[in-house]
Amino acid sequence: MFDKLCIFGVGLIGGSIAKAARLHQLSRTIIGYGREQDLANLQLAKQLGVIDEYFIEAAVITDLLSHAPQTGELLNCVVIATPVASIETIFSLLKPVWSANTIYTDVGSTKVNIINAAERVFGFVPDNLVPTHPIAGAEKSGVQAALIDLFVKRRLVITPVTNTNTEAVQTIKHFWEILGAIVSLMNAQYHDSILAATSHLPHLLAFALVDMLGHNDQQHEILNYAAGGFRDFTRIASSDPAMWTAICHANKTEIIPLLAQFKTELTKIEQLLLQDDYSQLAELFTYANNVRQGFLQQFDHQL
Amino acid sequence: MFDKLCIFGVGLIGGSIAKAARLHQLSRTIIGYGREQDLANLQLAKQLGVIDEYFIEAAVITDLLSHAPQTGELLNCVVIATPVASIETIFSLLKPVWSANTIYTDVGSTKVNIINAAERVFGFVPDNLVPTHPIAGAEKSGVQAALIDLFVKRRLVITPVTNTNTEAVQTIKHFWEILGAIVSLMNAQYHDSILAATSHLPHLLAFALVDMLGHNDQQHEILNYAAGGFRDFTRIASSDPAMWTAICHANKTEIIPLLAQFKTELTKIEQLLLQDDYSQLAELFTYANNVRQGFLQQFDHQL
Repeated sequence: MFDKLCIFGVGLIGGSIAKAARLHQLSRTIIGYGREQDLANLQLAKQLGVIDEYFIEAAVITDLLSHAPQTGELLNCVVIATPVASIETIFSLLKPVWSANTIYTDVGSTKVNIINAAERVFGFVPDNLVPTHPIAGAEKSGVQAALIDLFVKRRLVITPVTNTNTEAVQTIKHFWEILGAIVSLMNAQYHDSILAATSHLPHLLAFALVDMLGHNDQQHEILNYAAGGFRDFTRIASSDPAMWTAICHANKTEIIPLLAQFKTELTKIEQLLLQDDYSQLAELFTYANNVRQGFLQQFDHQL
Repeated sequence: MFDKLCIFGVGLIGGSIAKAARLHQLSRTIIGYGREQDLANLQLAKQLGVIDEYFIEAAVITDLLSHAPQTGELLNCVVIATPVASIETIFSLLKPVWSANTIYTDVGSTKVNIINAAERVFGFVPDNLVPTHPIAGAEKSGVQAALIDLFVKRRLVITPVTNTNTEAVQTIKHFWEILGAIVSLMNAQYHDSILAATSHLPHLLAFALVDMLGHNDQQHEILNYAAGGFRDFTRIASSDPAMWTAICHANKTEIIPLLAQFKTELTKIEQLLLQDDYSQLAELFTYANNVRQGFLQQFDHQL
C-alpha cells in the first residue's frame, strides 16, 4: 500500500500500527521518528522489529520525506502518533517538506484542535491530511505495550474537512480496515462531543475520585478495604497524566458543560436521598442498569 | 464446626457461603430459607447440591431453629444473607425462637443500620449476633452465580458491639478464615464510612453517569463509540438496582457528605480548566495516578 510508513511517536498506538501494518504488509519500509529523549524507546522498537529504522533528528526525517517514493507508484504515509499537545510542533516541522506524494494522518484523541492547529501552521487544512482517531488504548504506554491486534474490531473515526482529498480518505479507511478497525466518518466537532461524554468525562471522574480519597486522612485504611468494583471503576485513573492533561486542554469546551451537567445529576441523587425518595432512586438505578445492558450487548457484539 | 448452617437468602453471597462451607465440611447440614417467591431459586440450590434442604415457610424454619443441636456439642449457625432492607423483618421472625445454642450473623453491606434494626426488634443487640460484611461480590445475583471461592483472599469485616460474645466472634472469625477471607474487626460506623467512600460513592457515580448519558438525545450514537475504558468504569452500574437502593438508604448519612465533597472536587477541576491551569491539573492527575498505583500493589498483593 505504501512505500514508506513514517511513524512519529512509536508508543502504544504508533507501535501497534507498525506491528499490524507489517503483519499485513502494508508498507515496504516502516520508519520511526522521535526526539532525543525518545532514543531508548526507538532503539527498543528497532530491536523488537517493530520498525526498520529510526531517526531522532528532524533534519534526517525531513530529508527522507522530501524525496518522492522510489517506485513512482506508491505513496508515502506519515502517521503522527505523538501526544495531542505536540502535533502542532510536528506540523511546523513537516511544513517545509510537505509532499503531494504523501498522505498525512494523525491519531489524536481530539480532532477539532488538530484541525485548528493545521490551520494555524499552514493557513488552511492541507487536502492530504486525514485526521483520525482509533478508539482503542490502555493505561500502558511505550512500544513495549504495543499490540499487533490493538485495533481489531475497534472503532476508528475519520473526521475529514470539506477540502480533504477523497482518495486520501479512502486509502486511510482501507488501511485501517485491513488493520481490523470498524471505520466511521463524522464531523470533527461531533466526534469531540461524543468522546467528551464516553471517554474524557469518565477519565476525569476516575481521577477526581482517586484524588479525593487519596487526600482523605484515612487513605491507607480506606484503600485497604476497596474491592474489585473500585479497581475497575478507577482503572482509567492509571492513564498517563500528561496525555490526559493535553486531552482536557484540547477539548475543554466540550468537557466543561458535561462536568456541570454531571454535578446537576449528582445534586438530583443527593436530593432523592435527602427526601428519602427511594422509588425514584430505584427507577434511576434501573434505567441506568438497562442502558448499560444495551451498551454491553452492542459492545460485546462488536468483539 | 456447626450442626446446622441455616442460610436465609441463598443468592450470590448465601450460595457461595454454602458451597465453601460444604467444601470445608463446616456443618453437618446446610439448610436454605426463602420466601414463597424464592421457591424456584431454592429448588435450583438444592438441585445443584448447594443446600441439603430448604424451607419457604417461617413456621418450619423457626421450628427447626427452636430445637437445640442434636449432638449436644455443636452449635447451629444462622447466616442472614438477604438484602439489607429485609434484615429487620428476619430479626422479627427469629425473635420468638432466638436460641442461645445458635450463633447469628448477617452479611449486609452496611452495618450501623443492622445494629439499629436489632436494637429496634430486641430492645438491645443480642450477644450472639455477630454482624459481618464480606467485601466481595459481583453484578450477578442468584444461586447460579454463587462461587465456591468467592471469599478467598477477600476482606471480611466483623463489627461487634460492646456486649457481643467474644467466643461467638472468634467462631465466626475462624469460620470465615477457613473460607479464605482476610478478617478484620472494626467499629460499625467506621466500616460504614470506609465503604461509603470505596464502594457506595463509586456505584452512585457509575449509575449517575450512565443515567445522564442515557437521557442524552444521542444515546445510541454515543454508546456506539464507547470503548473498554467506559465498559470497566460503568461495570458497577450493572449491579442490582433494588440492592443498591437499599444500601443507599441504609448508609445515606455517610453517602450524602461524600457526594457533596465530590461535587466540590469536580468544581476544583472545572476551575482549573476554566483558568487554563494545566500544571495544577497535571499535578492532580499524577497524584491520583500514584495513589491508584499504591492501591493496585496492595490489592494485587492480597490476590
